[in-house]
Amino acid sequence: MGICRIIPLGGLGEVGKNMTVYEAEDSIVVVDAGLAFPRDEHLGVDLVLPDFTYLREREHMIRGVVLTHGHEDHVGSLPYLMREVRVPVIVATRLTLGLVKSKLDEHGLLREAELWEKSPYDDPFQLGPFRIEFVRMAHSIPDAAAVVLETPGGRVVHTGDYKLDHTPVDGQRTDVGKLADIGNRGVSLLLGDSTNAERAGFTQSERVVGEAFRQIIPQRTGRIIVSSFASNVHRMQQAADVAMECGRKVAFVGRSMRKNGNIARNLGYMNVPDDMIMRPHELAELPRDQQLILCTGSQGEPMSAMTRIAYNDHPAVSVEPGDTVIISAKPIPGNELRVHDAINRLAKMGAEVLHEDNAPVHVSGHGKAEELRTIIGLVRPRAVMPVHGEFRMLAAHAQLAREGGIPEEGIILAENGSVVELSEHGARIVDQVTAGMTFVDGLGVGDVADVALRDRRRLSEDGVLIVVATLTGSNGDGALTAPPELIARGFGEGADTLLDELRAEAQRVLEDLLADDVTEIKLLQEHVHDALGGVVYDRTRRRPMILPVLVEV
Amino acid sequence: MGICRIIPLGGLGEVGKNMTVYEAEDSIVVVDAGLAFPRDEHLGVDLVLPDFTYLREREHMIRGVVLTHGHEDHVGSLPYLMREVRVPVIVATRLTLGLVKSKLDEHGLLREAELWEKSPYDDPFQLGPFRIEFVRMAHSIPDAAAVVLETPGGRVVHTGDYKLDHTPVDGQRTDVGKLADIGNRGVSLLLGDSTNAERAGFTQSERVVGEAFRQIIPQRTGRIIVSSFASNVHRMQQAADVAMECGRKVAFVGRSMRKNGNIARNLGYMNVPDDMIMRPHELAELPRDQQLILCTGSQGEPMSAMTRIAYNDHPAVSVEPGDTVIISAKPIPGNELRVHDAINRLAKMGAEVLHEDNAPVHVSGHGKAEELRTIIGLVRPRAVMPVHGEFRMLAAHAQLAREGGIPEEGIILAENGSVVELSEHGARIVDQVTAGMTFVDGLGVGDVADVALRDRRRLSEDGVLIVVATLTGSNGDGALTAPPELIARGFGEGADTLLDELRAEAQRVLEDLLADDVTEIKLLQEHVHDALGGVVYDRTRRRPMILPVLVEV
Repeated sequence: MGICRIIPLGGLGEVGKNMTVYEAEDSIVVVDAGLAFPRDEHLGVDLVLPDFTYLREREHMIRGVVLTHGHEDHVGSLPYLMREVRVPVIVATRLTLGLVKSKLDEHGLLREAELWEKSPYDDPFQLGPFRIEFVRMAHSIPDAAAVVLETPGGRVVHTGDYKLDHTPVDGQRTDVGKLADIGNRGVSLLLGDSTNAERAGFTQSERVVGEAFRQIIPQRTGRIIVSSFASNVHRMQQAADVAMECGRKVAFVGRSMRKNGNIARNLGYMNVPDDMIMRPHELAELPRDQQLILCTGSQGEPMSAMTRIAYNDHPAVSVEPGDTVIISAKPIPGNELRVHDAINRLAKMGAEVLHEDNAPVHVSGHGKAEELRTIIGLVRPRAVMPVHGEFRMLAAHAQLAREGGIPEEGIILAENGSVVELSEHGARIVDQVTAGMTFVDGLGVGDVADVALRDRRRLSEDGVLIVVATLTGSNGDGALTAPPELIARGFGEGADTLLDELRAEAQRVLEDLLADDVTEIKLLQEHVHDALGGVVYDRTRRRPMILPVLVEV
Repeated sequence: MGICRIIPLGGLGEVGKNMTVYEAEDSIVVVDAGLAFPRDEHLGVDLVLPDFTYLREREHMIRGVVLTHGHEDHVGSLPYLMREVRVPVIVATRLTLGLVKSKLDEHGLLREAELWEKSPYDDPFQLGPFRIEFVRMAHSIPDAAAVVLETPGGRVVHTGDYKLDHTPVDGQRTDVGKLADIGNRGVSLLLGDSTNAERAGFTQSERVVGEAFRQIIPQRTGRIIVSSFASNVHRMQQAADVAMECGRKVAFVGRSMRKNGNIARNLGYMNVPDDMIMRPHELAELPRDQQLILCTGSQGEPMSAMTRIAYNDHPAVSVEPGDTVIISAKPIPGNELRVHDAINRLAKMGAEVLHEDNAPVHVSGHGKAEELRTIIGLVRPRAVMPVHGEFRMLAAHAQLAREGGIPEEGIILAENGSVVELSEHGARIVDQVTAGMTFVDGLGVGDVADVALRDRRRLSEDGVLIVVATLTGSNGDGALTAPPELIARGFGEGADTLLDELRAEAQRVLEDLLADDVTEIKLLQEHVHDALGGVVYDRTRRRPMILPVLVEV
């Protein structure tokens, strides 16, 4: 028996950008390639990726990337990874691959890798020295899977994200039989989802949300808007099913909602007949009690459909008294205030707003403590390495493992960059390699294939542009107190006229918005960021990091 | 019968800075004078107060301020109000008055008003045309009360914050009998706490947390740290009681915890014998299993005791494996990430961290829907005006009133600045006056009596100083990429040398902190803010708003 090195490059000590390297006999297989969303203190950053240094330095060893499911925190950095290193093969289940194909197509990368569609019921496949198969897991997106890897160092079960939903909407339960069978064969190491490890008990079935929709939707007489993650196909399906039974047509609003809706319908994961679908511009023609709108923005993202609806800034959708808005999601920590702001705005416009605090319109996609215990009991691994969570969640998962009979030396509390060596002697942390964050900026500018990927070393190449403006008034009487000021760093020669142009552009954008009563700082920032990014790119083909600092005085 | 005008100056459409004006026959009585904490987009602001314009313009009419309870969002702006207008009388229950006295003393205002201590069992008192009495309400601070005002326009019940705790720790239940009695006499208008109106059912009794402490504390063998709001006297008492029974001594750590602990003990609201109290510096001398530390920082406030402990930056307290930290509070929306960061840090240092997600160590101080319904049923008002909450909470409270039989014209959905006229014809909104936010900045500089109070008009007098610095590294290798840059606005002549000095000071502060491995953006900002504020004040006696913009690249 040999050795396998397991190196998490993301997802430990954080929620997001999951990525784990499996390395043996000069071969590397990567499980998941996710991204994270920036925190407020990451000014001027749109996305956060894992640091790919470790993989860049070992490009020739990469045999492929295996994906557990189609959420952005598991697949979102794949196109960026593929711009840095050659990925010969991408393996995923059907829906996951459908979502990834669309993503790669946008980035012009569709022909860069072989795409292998594998089902949990297919025979194992080989990538380098790894013999790999999928196991069906229930989660808040269809077609999620655990990955079982037979490595030279021992058998590994990598759960991906899961819950033990015994009544999933599509009938695709977590395959506890297969997990037990693999457990019987002997598992050296379990890498398990820790998101809800701190919470006692079981997560409720997705079906509970469908039951809530069945209570809520038939009683309503106005327009109904349901906002959720665009990847939550079963959530959309359940809302659409009840709505269609009540004689409502369904509209998909927001870019990712339309895109994911199409992919899911084309691949047979969602069933809404063509004649039951409205286009957003048809909404005005149909009575409000014959409409259900599925829209993005459940996290209060500044430019999303729900936020624009809440600020009465959406081209096709508005709310009025008698309408109902269902926010079928939980705010990710850090997004609470934005979501609350949107709820208050919608309530003020007269809509009834239902959300997780006042109606059972959301359940988690992640199993709680008893489910994690169940998986440990079924798989009976020699060692457990908690992944996918902040440190406190990993620590809680470790405690569950301890209570589940895993000996202390078999509990691997690793962090991003830890090198875990797995062999017949068990698993242990032997080294630490570079792991960190890479920032993506400039999604507002031009084509998605053309964004700026930058890490600490690269930032200095394109520079930083800081725009400072002070404004008065959040009560509809907003105005600039003085022209904006700019601080440019790392801009080349000839920047003086450019700075004048940028200053004028920032002033124009802000004055136009303020004249239109747009006074939300986050929206103003977003618009200034995009406008200046466009000008700089036009003139210089460069993408400085652009930080709008707007101060209300 | 005459008319009473009721004007909320804060607390509607928001959580915080509660303040309501009652005006009749050329007299004004103000109920509560609270403050709010700034949101992240309020850069450079320490506190937010109501706009006192309405009261400034009617100073001669003010007969007094009546306080419902001692929380900052109900009493915190009183000293600032008293710097603007003369307040002849302050009326409150015993503990509330004790807390307010200490606050006024710090601001040098103790002799500026008559202080009337009133109990809910005293006879009504008169302020101008208003005959006023208190009613005992249970809340997360002792001695909370509703205010009943006999006004020329009719009888008003103003609940303050409350829950219907039938087993409060001090036995002081919400006085449902007196409320029913007042209801029988006839109530024209109820102003009620809306905080938890969206939540179904009942809030649990404070005693539940005591039971959790009784499960948790006796089993622990290391140091125990309990973090909660310093005003939550019963929470502290319950933790101290269990700890003392287990042979632990009690330490009060953090400025407001020490202060409130002293006031509560002196007034008899808390019972911890002197010989059971440790000073922070004695902690090192006592075995860890003989200690209970009550500390501030349950909201992850940057300079609080718990945050400093979590970042291993506290002079007296540290944690190690085997210790237990109990966060006995819920993060206020917007504070989640800071609290999560602290939990992760503490968990990483080896402490077991118990918080509302994994143990029943917190209950709300605000009643939920069934409690609000009960109060409406007891008081049977002709009209209900939801107060104390974001718009969605007020709307939910309005819906409860509607369901409770209040006619549509008796449901007053007001906002800050609404003028509600109460007369024999009922209550209705008749006008809108100036209401808004006033910012307080500069608490880090010098004496609390000496902070800068500023609103939009005043800001320009002292100006704005924006400090921009870019730094690398959050992994202990932090460094400035270039000297900080400054943007000054509204600074007078001679500022050039001052700006050079400020630039050098900012650089020095940041380099010192980075050399000490302090890389938390919020902490760095706080230190830069305080240091530059000090220099500017020394040189110019001015207090510009100081905004440190730190960009990690």
